[in-house]
Amino acid sequence: MKVMNVDTPSVLINLDRMEKNIAEMQRFCDEHNYQFRPHIKTHKIPEIAHMQLAAGAIGITCQKIGEAEVMAAGGIKDILIYYNILGESKLERLARLAHRANISVAVDSETTLKGIGEMAGTAGCRLGVFIDCDTGIHRTGVNSPADALKLAQLVMQYPNLEFKGLSTFPLTPSSGPWFEEAQQVFEAAHVAIPMVSAGSSRGPQYAQDIPQVTALCAGTYVFYDWSSVETGLVDVERCAASVVATVVSRPTATTATIDAGSKTLSSDFGYMKNGDGYGHILDFPQARIFSLSEEHGQVDFSQCDRVPEVGERVFVLPNHVCAMINLHDVVYGVRGDEVEVIWEVGARGKVR
Amino acid sequence: MKVMNVDTPSVLINLDRMEKNIAEMQRFCDEHNYQFRPHIKTHKIPEIAHMQLAAGAIGITCQKIGEAEVMAAGGIKDILIYYNILGESKLERLARLAHRANISVAVDSETTLKGIGEMAGTAGCRLGVFIDCDTGIHRTGVNSPADALKLAQLVMQYPNLEFKGLSTFPLTPSSGPWFEEAQQVFEAAHVAIPMVSAGSSRGPQYAQDIPQVTALCAGTYVFYDWSSVETGLVDVERCAASVVATVVSRPTATTATIDAGSKTLSSDFGYMKNGDGYGHILDFPQARIFSLSEEHGQVDFSQCDRVPEVGERVFVLPNHVCAMINLHDVVYGVRGDEVEVIWEVGARGKVR
Repeated sequence: MKVMNVDTPSVLINLDRMEKNIAEMQRFCDEHNYQFRPHIKTHKIPEIAHMQLAAGAIGITCQKIGEAEVMAAGGIKDILIYYNILGESKLERLARLAHRANISVAVDSETTLKGIGEMAGTAGCRLGVFIDCDTGIHRTGVNSPADALKLAQLVMQYPNLEFKGLSTFPLTPSSGPWFEEAQQVFEAAHVAIPMVSAGSSRGPQYAQDIPQVTALCAGTYVFYDWSSVETGLVDVERCAASVVATVVSRPTATTATIDAGSKTLSSDFGYMKNGDGYGHILDFPQARIFSLSEEHGQVDFSQCDRVPEVGERVFVLPNHVCAMINLHDVVYGVRGDEVEVIWEVGARGKVR
Repeated sequence: MKVMNVDTPSVLINLDRMEKNIAEMQRFCDEHNYQFRPHIKTHKIPEIAHMQLAAGAIGITCQKIGEAEVMAAGGIKDILIYYNILGESKLERLARLAHRANISVAVDSETTLKGIGEMAGTAGCRLGVFIDCDTGIHRTGVNSPADALKLAQLVMQYPNLEFKGLSTFPLTPSSGPWFEEAQQVFEAAHVAIPMVSAGSSRGPQYAQDIPQVTALCAGTYVFYDWSSVETGLVDVERCAASVVATVVSRPTATTATIDAGSKTLSSDFGYMKNGDGYGHILDFPQARIFSLSEEHGQVDFSQCDRVPEVGERVFVLPNHVCAMINLHDVVYGVRGDEVEVIWEVGARGKVR
């Protein structure tokens, strides 16, 4: 199947670029002695996770049990669910998973830890536990190194749990002092920290200034997106995921409307808090997607040499690739002008 | 199953409120002699479409062929696909649909019309055609009443197409003068306009000032959402769809983090161009969801009497219900504290 015959709107994955992104992040980790555990929330496709493992990753990261279930069913054997897991239904699913694969979780409260520790005891399964540390953004995580130590010591009281280390998302300027203090606090208590894991595709930029960090986690890097470019992380040539769309209307002389709206691209801005436009149109770098409704994107081409006609195709880099992929049931892996693989987005829609 | 046993995050539909919303919109249309064709993009569930038809709707509106295919498979017999349909793959699917149900489409260009007219001739199917009119927002639609007439006359040259009337989305202050001029232009040419259809759940507010409008289309009204409340359309008691979420972390004394982020609520603002927060928490009206990441919502409870603890549940009205439902594979229809029905969101993920 030729790419030109893929109906619109559809997600195209440039396989050459994706493979390069996977290889380069792994090479960075290898060169700097970081263990690497990619976050699959970006692609949600078991086969891509296997590619990341084949490149050298020690396991994968998921955000939800539903994602981990899909990945385990896809044969992945080492999974960190980086989330505070609460409630009977999820704990039962966690126990079932832990009988099939090496599962770790992240906790930041005694409430969460108690549920997991008791479930592991009852179900007779083993679980690794990271202490989630709030080193800057106040989303989740224990407040202080002292609290991290206290929770780690509690983990050790559950015979079925193993303290795996500290983790944070994302690295910020305050992460360095935080982990330095944590190192001192844990050393004073004679508690070893097996691993310090730090998240985000921007992590590599900051991790090298923080000697305590021993492991990295990143998701977006597998495809990158327009917000990665706009915020200076990578060049546009690293972006591996685009949406092919068709011009369906030409409401004015300088604007065109495409068949990709918020239900195709998502209106999420990703790394940008607020973006000037809802993505980037390749071949028309001066075009601006100034409005998204559910199934339409309105594009201003007034700064371009020409305006595409009704029926023409354009290729859009999404602002936030993770939010975009999550809207699609399938993606098309392409090499050159050929579709090489059609992947089901296996872990899409797993809200729990 | 009790509502309290539904795992989080999940979409809850208050059936009493939904039924009231369906009945009241239909009563308004009946009282004012509007034909009503609800847009199913909001719920994407055939059974709810049947409820809307049973209340008196003349048919349904879809935005995509994929939605129409699901609705036709659900037994719906009269469907307007309010979209410029282009390309061989979609035209073939349109022809198959037109053999199973009464299908109309909207067109705003000769390019689109030509494809549809020729396909209908080749496939031997009949299709209704609305001329999509740009009466204000420059998203799609012909630019002028004269262009509408020209395109309507072209429709009549295709033996398998029937000119059904004019349509616009949404009604704006300029829609009135536009349709007044259209009436004059069409009368001068002795071309009858069978129907003038106007879209959006805000339509009823404006339609009564425009005597040419004979039919309404609305989607959001079936559930409404926080943006409907914030923009003064309805009271909060009309909102029928919420997300039940669990507090998974308490990073600070005055904030809590819930297990509903942008992949559960969507970061779309709906009717609001920019909202102050990503939804509204029932029972905590002063709380503010100040940040969404993919699987976390960060909530400021500093203006509330208390802050919910880890493990507590909260109920969130989404800013944009259409974008939210589109993220979920199922929704839970509830009455009182009982789950009465679990609906698959049948037309979710139909990006084409």
